Amino acid sequence: MPPAADLGRALCVVTGASRGFGRAVALDLCRLVQPGSALVLVARSGADLRAVQAELTESQAGRGGLKVEAVAADVGKVESLEDVVRISRDAFNEEMETIIVINNAASLGDVSKYVKGFTDMAQVDAYLSLNVSSAVCLTARLLQAFPARAGLRRCVINVTSICALQPFRSWGLYCTGKAARDMMFKVLAEEEPELRVLRPLDTEMQMEARTKTADPSIKKKFSNMFAQGQLVTCEASSAKLMKLLLEDEFPSGEHIDIFDV
Amino acid sequence: MPPAADLGRALCVVTGASRGFGRAVALDLCRLVQPGSALVLVARSGADLRAVQAELTESQAGRGGLKVEAVAADVGKVESLEDVVRISRDAFNEEMETIIVINNAASLGDVSKYVKGFTDMAQVDAYLSLNVSSAVCLTARLLQAFPARAGLRRCVINVTSICALQPFRSWGLYCTGKAARDMMFKVLAEEEPELRVLRPLDTEMQMEARTKTADPSIKKKFSNMFAQGQLVTCEASSAKLMKLLLEDEFPSGEHIDIFDV
Repeated sequence: MPPAADLGRALCVVTGASRGFGRAVALDLCRLVQPGSALVLVARSGADLRAVQAELTESQAGRGGLKVEAVAADVGKVESLEDVVRISRDAFNEEMETIIVINNAASLGDVSKYVKGFTDMAQVDAYLSLNVSSAVCLTARLLQAFPARAGLRRCVINVTSICALQPFRSWGLYCTGKAARDMMFKVLAEEEPELRVLRPLDTEMQMEARTKTADPSIKKKFSNMFAQGQLVTCEASSAKLMKLLLEDEFPSGEHIDIFDV
Repeated sequence: MPPAADLGRALCVVTGASRGFGRAVALDLCRLVQPGSALVLVARSGADLRAVQAELTESQAGRGGLKVEAVAADVGKVESLEDVVRISRDAFNEEMETIIVINNAASLGDVSKYVKGFTDMAQVDAYLSLNVSSAVCLTARLLQAFPARAGLRRCVINVTSICALQPFRSWGLYCTGKAARDMMFKVLAEEEPELRVLRPLDTEMQMEARTKTADPSIKKKFSNMFAQGQLVTCEASSAKLMKLLLEDEFPSGEHIDIFDV
């Protein structure tokens, strides 16, 4: 089947939408959804988020009636999940045929430490809560708010990383969080075969990674990749994600590497 | 090299030691360490734990001077980690040549729910704290308490499961926790090449799994395995773990399936 020309009338929820990959995805979605759609953008940083909201509202799609909601919220907090679900419900209308949830919000964690430095349970707990529990619980709440029914296509994206598959020295938290999230969405894909669960590769946090990574060899690797122009931009990654969404032929629950698209 | 006849003079820390696989491992270690060794057994259940302690103290090794400490503690609590480290320090003596840490404590999680049922962040947070953070932080604290030095062999075991590698319907928490733990110990193995990090397969919780699993096909699969005698006993699993420890040739950080030993 040839790829669809657009994503139809859709409700799209994007976390971590204020910058980087999340922002790039929000901009792309805005161009690819039909009039009558809504974007719910979530991020901790209120100012950056409102800038993205303003940009989208003033875009051609925005002027054409695309609803753009901004939820300044920390998805690591229960009240924030409630806000996102409530605003998503309000933004939904019965003419929408697609729901796309993009779990993008994530943090790099403390890469200045090796695993043997993680003696503080509160630090590890907080990392896992923000990077694993919040994505799982937000997705679960949205799936319950918008149950499966004929004519409604539901698609859940987990923005993941090669770090979900391979260990990197001094990246203990990040690798662990990504591996955990990957597995949870893999289980979800087994449980809900009619749902499309995609796990693309992220390209975020490279600057933070280049400056703060404790392990010298890993730090050098990232710096070299940057110097040689090997890092994929957020825009290029997002374009590949849109291609996958439009083609709609990816195996549910698979870890798809952006470099393979 | 032929396998060693015993594990030498060792300090062994075993979590979840009051029953099942942890208890079987404690019994095996007790037979395989030399006089002058110490076992630090950790579990939430004080009564069961003291029964194992009494059994070991009255064994041949116990009568021969093996020190057996019981720490009735919930490894999900910071104070408990402090207790385990303090008692391990006290039990250590300069003649010991090996430290073996066996991260066995784990819970099955709520298998009566599918992923879309995990709307409660506190539930997911608590599961990850007990099953991921506690093992990471206890290991980190013990590695700091007993730093690398010539003549001291340090070995960290992460008791894992096929669920770390494969998704099972209605086992979202268990699979996610195991995948997360596996990755953290994989990173540790990359960071500390002189450390031996082994990740064997567990055989625990089968009864709980057979009775509580929500997904009918997965439940049936476990029941059939049980009916056909395909479930490996804790004792048989522990014996294979001891074989790996004595041979001391496993690749550090590898996921080793007990069925392949």
